[in-house]
Amino acid sequence: MSNRNAFYAQSGGVTAVINATACGVIEAARRNADRIGTVFAGKNGILGALREELIDTGGLADADVARLRHTPGGAFGSCRYKLASLDDDEKEYRRLIDVFRAHDIGYFFYNGGGDSQDTAHKVSLLGDRLGYPVNCIGIPKTVDNDLPATDTCPGFGSVAKYVAISVREAALDVASMCETSTKVFILEVMGRHAGWIAAAGGLAKTGRDGAPHVIVLPEVPFDEQRFLEKTRDAVERVGYCVIVVSEGARYPDGRFLSDSGASDAFGHAQLGGVAPMMAELVRARLGFKFHWAVADYLQRAARHVASATDVEQAYAVGRHAVELALAGKDSVMATIVRTSDAPYRWELGDAPLERVANIERRMPKSFISRDGFGITAAARRYLEPLIAGEDYPPYAAGLPDYVAFAGTTEPKKLAAFAT
Amino acid sequence: MSNRNAFYAQSGGVTAVINATACGVIEAARRNADRIGTVFAGKNGILGALREELIDTGGLADADVARLRHTPGGAFGSCRYKLASLDDDEKEYRRLIDVFRAHDIGYFFYNGGGDSQDTAHKVSLLGDRLGYPVNCIGIPKTVDNDLPATDTCPGFGSVAKYVAISVREAALDVASMCETSTKVFILEVMGRHAGWIAAAGGLAKTGRDGAPHVIVLPEVPFDEQRFLEKTRDAVERVGYCVIVVSEGARYPDGRFLSDSGASDAFGHAQLGGVAPMMAELVRARLGFKFHWAVADYLQRAARHVASATDVEQAYAVGRHAVELALAGKDSVMATIVRTSDAPYRWELGDAPLERVANIERRMPKSFISRDGFGITAAARRYLEPLIAGEDYPPYAAGLPDYVAFAGTTEPKKLAAFAT
Repeated sequence: MSNRNAFYAQSGGVTAVINATACGVIEAARRNADRIGTVFAGKNGILGALREELIDTGGLADADVARLRHTPGGAFGSCRYKLASLDDDEKEYRRLIDVFRAHDIGYFFYNGGGDSQDTAHKVSLLGDRLGYPVNCIGIPKTVDNDLPATDTCPGFGSVAKYVAISVREAALDVASMCETSTKVFILEVMGRHAGWIAAAGGLAKTGRDGAPHVIVLPEVPFDEQRFLEKTRDAVERVGYCVIVVSEGARYPDGRFLSDSGASDAFGHAQLGGVAPMMAELVRARLGFKFHWAVADYLQRAARHVASATDVEQAYAVGRHAVELALAGKDSVMATIVRTSDAPYRWELGDAPLERVANIERRMPKSFISRDGFGITAAARRYLEPLIAGEDYPPYAAGLPDYVAFAGTTEPKKLAAFAT
Repeated sequence: MSNRNAFYAQSGGVTAVINATACGVIEAARRNADRIGTVFAGKNGILGALREELIDTGGLADADVARLRHTPGGAFGSCRYKLASLDDDEKEYRRLIDVFRAHDIGYFFYNGGGDSQDTAHKVSLLGDRLGYPVNCIGIPKTVDNDLPATDTCPGFGSVAKYVAISVREAALDVASMCETSTKVFILEVMGRHAGWIAAAGGLAKTGRDGAPHVIVLPEVPFDEQRFLEKTRDAVERVGYCVIVVSEGARYPDGRFLSDSGASDAFGHAQLGGVAPMMAELVRARLGFKFHWAVADYLQRAARHVASATDVEQAYAVGRHAVELALAGKDSVMATIVRTSDAPYRWELGDAPLERVANIERRMPKSFISRDGFGITAAARRYLEPLIAGEDYPPYAAGLPDYVAFAGTTEPKKLAAFAT
């Protein structure tokens, strides 16, 4: 079984560092060329396997593979595509095994969130059942930081750093101008179900009166009255109020704030922007001049200010996934294990996929301040090491010099498959 | 007249590098301590002079003054406050002269946009008329890059760099996912009347199919039908479409795409929210899945990724303003004079304030592509040097280490003045 090929796919929303993981996988495989053949990357993630659209990474120069480490986005394409349940319909899983068999793929590396870990687990189960040996290794990736069993998810640390920096910088701007201009600034960040990213904005805070003054988390049902009180209090005490709000913020009845049906400050229909909705609330109820920003993809693509810790961990879990596969492991996810907060120390580990798949990790209650609008010292101890260090990309002509691949795929050996 | 004091004020919207200009002013004054006494900074800009709230920068350690160079926002506070017309009401101008006289201020450095240059010009006129000698020197600052007589305005290059980087990064994200997810991404940027900032997004483009695919400028009346065609064409040809839209984009009848009805202290319409409006247009008319971002203050506060060229020029105009004053110049603005595009070369100059005040420089037609949705090679030649080079701030615990001052003001010598 030596020298079989590998399949690597990126899944779901991409991050500033998922390509660093790809770099880790490919470089580790190259260092073990006596035991791993070609690393095929799925064009657009798992769709690449289903459609037999395989990119031979063997054609990439070492120098270009190295550039993956500093390039955001998904270099081979990713997708939002959830396979049918294995119990309902084996067809897609059987197709994956067919494609793996046709290309002598003995290692499956799946780089994504909870759904992807579930898929990797099921491919492993079906491979066993069909007598086709394939080592299925999950590799964690999600800016939402909501995977269990790993101390953190590569991708999160860089978003956290971007958000904390943005809050600190915008707050200096607002502080400068608040005497005659904007009193309330609202930054909307990602995090549909878990408030890790919004919480990271809290790292910008220095002292009692520092920004952000209010953090609105999905974990805490939105209390409009107390939110308004807290905002007014900051403006009265400090002169201005900086608010970080998670896109997943919800009313006590479970509705998203962004699904409120309200129109924004400019009379436009609401389009999922919680920041403009909140700005309109502040204007209508408190009368303060406001500004708002929605970081959207900018936050998860911001490789220009990635966390060095995050980049290192993203690379390490990729490399470790290959080592786990070569050690004969199957149906596990590479993990990051924290051994000390300060000084921050971590090592690599692994966890069974069945313990990881489809489980969403929310923030512990102990990370949320008693009033629900801030983070605790325990949260800071957890978050601070994750944004530590800078790892700047190289620049050319004033812009980051990122790598892009043509995405040319291998000749197909099988009949087409409808996805 | 030797050894008189100086007054320095920041005006209007702050930038990532306006404090670098403050640093240039203060350090140049310290080097000429035999000829300039104390540099007083106005607390919250010109309001600090009207209210006699003067911050003695002499109390700042050299090391803290040096840290201004890498700190965004306005360290002494800025304001949006337009003085009454000198013809209508001399009261405010007379008050400035009174305060200058009370604190032996012989040099007035006003760091702002067109309105501020106008104010500096009028203070100079009134000083002459009242027989109070004061050298009034304007120092350019505006992210909008819309001042005449100077090749560029400090503050613009860093916003331009931030926007170009953000477009490049977000485009990689969208490109990765477009097969199954977002097809159209819209980034809203600043630029009320001039499209310089949106145009800078065009620097991210590499090759015919590179992002951004559509730039919507205030200079070009918004043609909805052609915009939709252009967007659909990009999605069909490239798989996705990245759009940069200026907050100042207008319909052919002059209405802003995002008219809120509200206005700021200068009587300018308060804008924001064109991205969600445009996203709704794309959804309704083309049916594409979209995402949008509004950078707002993040773009003009983003010192973490400032242009080294911009930082250097911001510092240089501050230093040069002091040199101009000491050379006996009055009623001039320090300027940046470009002597070569490639290699980029520039020097310092000055221009009479009467030729600068209240004139808005729009982008030349030659910078806008024939279809109105892109930039030309001439625009690139102009813009590219302005984003060149990186000048990272120092970091501590994963975050930029910015300086903040208490803003303690001097004892007042005059009666209060109502602003």
